[in-house]
Amino acid sequence: MRQRITFLSGGTGSSKLLLGMKKLMSGFDVIANVADNFWFYGLYVCPDIDIACYTLSGIADRIKGWGIRDDTFHFVDQLGKLGFENWFRLGDMDLATSIVRTWMIREGKSLGEITKIISRALGIRESIIPASEEHYETHVITPEGDMHLQEFWVKYSGSPEVLDVVYRGIELCKLSKEAEESIKKAERIIICPANPVSSIMPILSLQGAREAFLSSDARKIAVSPIVGNKPFSGPACKFMKAKQMECSSFGIAKMYSSFIDVLVVHENDSKLRKKIEDLGVECLCMNTSISDERSASYLAERLLSV
Amino acid sequence: MRQRITFLSGGTGSSKLLLGMKKLMSGFDVIANVADNFWFYGLYVCPDIDIACYTLSGIADRIKGWGIRDDTFHFVDQLGKLGFENWFRLGDMDLATSIVRTWMIREGKSLGEITKIISRALGIRESIIPASEEHYETHVITPEGDMHLQEFWVKYSGSPEVLDVVYRGIELCKLSKEAEESIKKAERIIICPANPVSSIMPILSLQGAREAFLSSDARKIAVSPIVGNKPFSGPACKFMKAKQMECSSFGIAKMYSSFIDVLVVHENDSKLRKKIEDLGVECLCMNTSISDERSASYLAERLLSV
Repeated sequence: MRQRITFLSGGTGSSKLLLGMKKLMSGFDVIANVADNFWFYGLYVCPDIDIACYTLSGIADRIKGWGIRDDTFHFVDQLGKLGFENWFRLGDMDLATSIVRTWMIREGKSLGEITKIISRALGIRESIIPASEEHYETHVITPEGDMHLQEFWVKYSGSPEVLDVVYRGIELCKLSKEAEESIKKAERIIICPANPVSSIMPILSLQGAREAFLSSDARKIAVSPIVGNKPFSGPACKFMKAKQMECSSFGIAKMYSSFIDVLVVHENDSKLRKKIEDLGVECLCMNTSISDERSASYLAERLLSV
Repeated sequence: MRQRITFLSGGTGSSKLLLGMKKLMSGFDVIANVADNFWFYGLYVCPDIDIACYTLSGIADRIKGWGIRDDTFHFVDQLGKLGFENWFRLGDMDLATSIVRTWMIREGKSLGEITKIISRALGIRESIIPASEEHYETHVITPEGDMHLQEFWVKYSGSPEVLDVVYRGIELCKLSKEAEESIKKAERIIICPANPVSSIMPILSLQGAREAFLSSDARKIAVSPIVGNKPFSGPACKFMKAKQMECSSFGIAKMYSSFIDVLVVHENDSKLRKKIEDLGVECLCMNTSISDERSASYLAERLLSV
């Protein structure tokens, strides 16, 4: 019998797992992080929503890990020629998503409705759900000042020292109604192997997120994005250290312990099992690294039967 | 000695003459029609301003007569795949102009300032001046209803029957300060061989345009866009007929008579000379057809010495 599954997802790492699940089944829900959304020359760009859309419709650029396959960059190159900053590489096809989204926002549609329209147009059978209808932003505090996550990661290649990471404006933001319902109805909630500080905690820190998790009977499983002391990708360690968290699967277990039943860690981290279980979190060890579609489907399949 | 020259310009036909003049001198003013501006999925597109910019910076697609040379159309193609209308073929590089313009409008800059910023970025030494700072739109009235000029010309390929052409909202619009000053200071005003109804009259019908012309000591010269009963390009005849004007250089003379001193017509129209001069407009006959850079420069040179 088909299970109701809800993912919590971020960017590149998450999309690999979503692709693996898509090979096994369709119709699941994906609650996408929105704290990395930003305004780029008047366009509303939603990288985590878009990578989920592109992945599930089969048009994602899986080599780069973002954007649309075979996209071109004539728009951003011209932007540079006109003297404007063009460090954010928004592809020409990718741009269409941001332009129609911004247009529909100005017409009064909600981000959830817009995401449904775009998903449907791309032939997606899963529900991609913005974590919140409200805008807030993950900012990185560095010795040189406060910057948007995209600026930190794309413009400065993640190199500045990180003093703290904050979710600017989150105090006024709620988990979206649709995300809340998806969590409540789910039989299985899977937290993708994503950056805990910049992808998952921005969702779990929304007003109503804890309550939704508590009132859900789902089996709640997170996949650790870290093996040993290294994340599969991205600046997870820098961010965790800035949050005074140990950069390891044990650190992940501590961050998520009040939300999850099970943490899936890489088999190389089996020595952490007892320590993690002492936190009241069941710990399962398996091969969590996703190098291709086969390993993605393998992991997805294991997660269905955990 | 260098003359102060101000052009009134529309689209494709005008840009050919501007290119001819650019070969002879630099630093002239171009007052560009803005009544063909329109909102396209939240972006403010200004085709007549942009073709002037692209022509004078040497990046125009001279074969198509609009847009940027070697541009691609991946954005509009993707727009179509997402289920949105994409009859307006805004190129990927061309898009950068509209995106930064719209962004600067929302930041509070005027269209004149924005056009200066874009012109400077493109290395243009001429002043491209929006005819008005206010938004109004040339609409074509057809038996099926009222449509924007772009819709009539691009979406429906100019095929609907034309009952009338109106400048929606013009009653609240003034000639821009900068255009007014350019007209007043000019020693020579040249009205480009453009569609009189959709490119030139929208400028001349602005509040303050007649007064600016009357108070200017410039020699005022128009180039007829029509030879015999055919325009060089575009829907001039359909529009003139809807306005109960004869589609000929005589019709042009009648439309412009209270604004100009001289009408330059094609040598094949020399038989109209007397009829035109009876309107109080000096009529000069020459080869006005522009087939290449040489003929463009030839015409420009003649216009400098008229």
